[in-house]
Amino acid sequence: MSVLIVGSTALDSIKTPSAANVRLLGGSASHAAVAASFFAPVKLIGVVGEDFPQEYLALYRRHKIDLSGLQIVPGKTFHWSGEYELNMNNRRTLRTELGVFETFTPTLPQMHQDTEFVLLANIAPALQHHVLDQMRKPRFVVADTMDLWLNIALPDLLRLLPRIDGFVLNDSEAAQLTQEDNQFRALKKIHALGPKYVIIKKGSHGSLLSGPKGIFLCPAYPLQTVEDPTGAGDSFVGGLMGWLAAAKGSIDANIRRAMVYGSVTASFCCEGFGLTRTTRVKRGDIEKRVKELEKLTKF
Amino acid sequence: MSVLIVGSTALDSIKTPSAANVRLLGGSASHAAVAASFFAPVKLIGVVGEDFPQEYLALYRRHKIDLSGLQIVPGKTFHWSGEYELNMNNRRTLRTELGVFETFTPTLPQMHQDTEFVLLANIAPALQHHVLDQMRKPRFVVADTMDLWLNIALPDLLRLLPRIDGFVLNDSEAAQLTQEDNQFRALKKIHALGPKYVIIKKGSHGSLLSGPKGIFLCPAYPLQTVEDPTGAGDSFVGGLMGWLAAAKGSIDANIRRAMVYGSVTASFCCEGFGLTRTTRVKRGDIEKRVKELEKLTKF
Repeated sequence: MSVLIVGSTALDSIKTPSAANVRLLGGSASHAAVAASFFAPVKLIGVVGEDFPQEYLALYRRHKIDLSGLQIVPGKTFHWSGEYELNMNNRRTLRTELGVFETFTPTLPQMHQDTEFVLLANIAPALQHHVLDQMRKPRFVVADTMDLWLNIALPDLLRLLPRIDGFVLNDSEAAQLTQEDNQFRALKKIHALGPKYVIIKKGSHGSLLSGPKGIFLCPAYPLQTVEDPTGAGDSFVGGLMGWLAAAKGSIDANIRRAMVYGSVTASFCCEGFGLTRTTRVKRGDIEKRVKELEKLTKF
Repeated sequence: MSVLIVGSTALDSIKTPSAANVRLLGGSASHAAVAASFFAPVKLIGVVGEDFPQEYLALYRRHKIDLSGLQIVPGKTFHWSGEYELNMNNRRTLRTELGVFETFTPTLPQMHQDTEFVLLANIAPALQHHVLDQMRKPRFVVADTMDLWLNIALPDLLRLLPRIDGFVLNDSEAAQLTQEDNQFRALKKIHALGPKYVIIKKGSHGSLLSGPKGIFLCPAYPLQTVEDPTGAGDSFVGGLMGWLAAAKGSIDANIRRAMVYGSVTASFCCEGFGLTRTTRVKRGDIEKRVKELEKLTKF
């Protein structure tokens, strides 16, 4: 099975305490698509401007990402710039230039509308609705989000939650959405808003799944060096959806292992700026870290 | 095998956003001893004043804790009072009255000096040295600590580290001691200071072990309600040492499971003020949560 992924396709300029890089390939859909591509065929829905570097299109193609849903239009590509503090947990957005994203309302190619696995990566909930409206009979739909949408588009997001199977958000967003500090109580409150599967991402502390088979405590791969965590959450959910789409059997039988694969894919993302480390990963590298995680958690 | 535990034996007055309780049984040795008592015989080394309630002595005895090393002397019992903020992660000490602890330099009963498992629970490093000096040939010595000793008794603590087998501290203390935000790099730096086993406690995020068999990511039991986390870290290390002392085989073969038992024992501690919940726990309750943790982490 393949995965349809909609989200932002952007250029990122990122500063950390140790280095700075400008106009890297970024955006939630870019990270998620490359992560998913290790496991399953990916169809990307997005938009870029005429300034979008050819080498980034080549990069997508090297990962066998179907670009028939990627529009290239006059104007500037979405550009985000941000800066990390010393402990890499706090991020400050310096500038956001929406560019061609401002008027993006994609019409999905006919052949994309039957895709069974759909990832609504982090993007405005209205756009997530717009893409979901065009899907015929998806088997499994997961949406990611960010604090921005909780702040400026909450009604759209709340309307989306009953329409999706799985919802992914980070710990602080879960607390903001539910007004609940305790993550296990927050999970219950989010289920009540619609989704059957809820995943809370906790950065280096791993992630939590709540679903029909109960809670799963998913570990994060231990990293001694975090170069740039931008896109780690997108890589996590991309890897998760790619692995799920490729796996045989029920969602319940596969989702825990899918999260572990997502977690490992995200660990590589953190080890380099933008997608520079992820794109050098081989499937065997991923399998090796998954095996290590099995050993690291066994008791 | 039995466990010798030295640490503070105190009265705690604790305020949380939802309730307040005064003069509860507290102190690192009390929490650790009760936790260890679920698994192995415990010998307590401590001091209390003449104001120490008889019911607390009865509580120790119900847990079959050997009190021949507990001195009852003229004066007041060590009294700590503190207050938790809404998220239960930040604690503020309101008052510390050392009382009879000020002049405590215990002489160990002859029969205690041969104990194989020794837990130097959180207390001044000088006192940890003083007790360790009296042990004949301990098989496994673990020390806990707190930020206070890093601030006011660092040389004593650094002198202790090469003398012990295992060192337990929390995440912020590890960062303070090593000037290292990354916990996996911090573990390496702490090994270089002496101990073969290093454990970093991360509260609701679980704990990390680094030892001869590599890293172990130990989960925390998911709690929907945290009434009072005071003593959770002491319960963790107490449960760990009790389980280790009772287990057959090498330390390396047992320490991961010992951590899980410590983690579960600590989870009960958080569910009530002081020791009120822990003392109502049956061994079967612990086994049940350990089995649950196995299911919660399986992939």
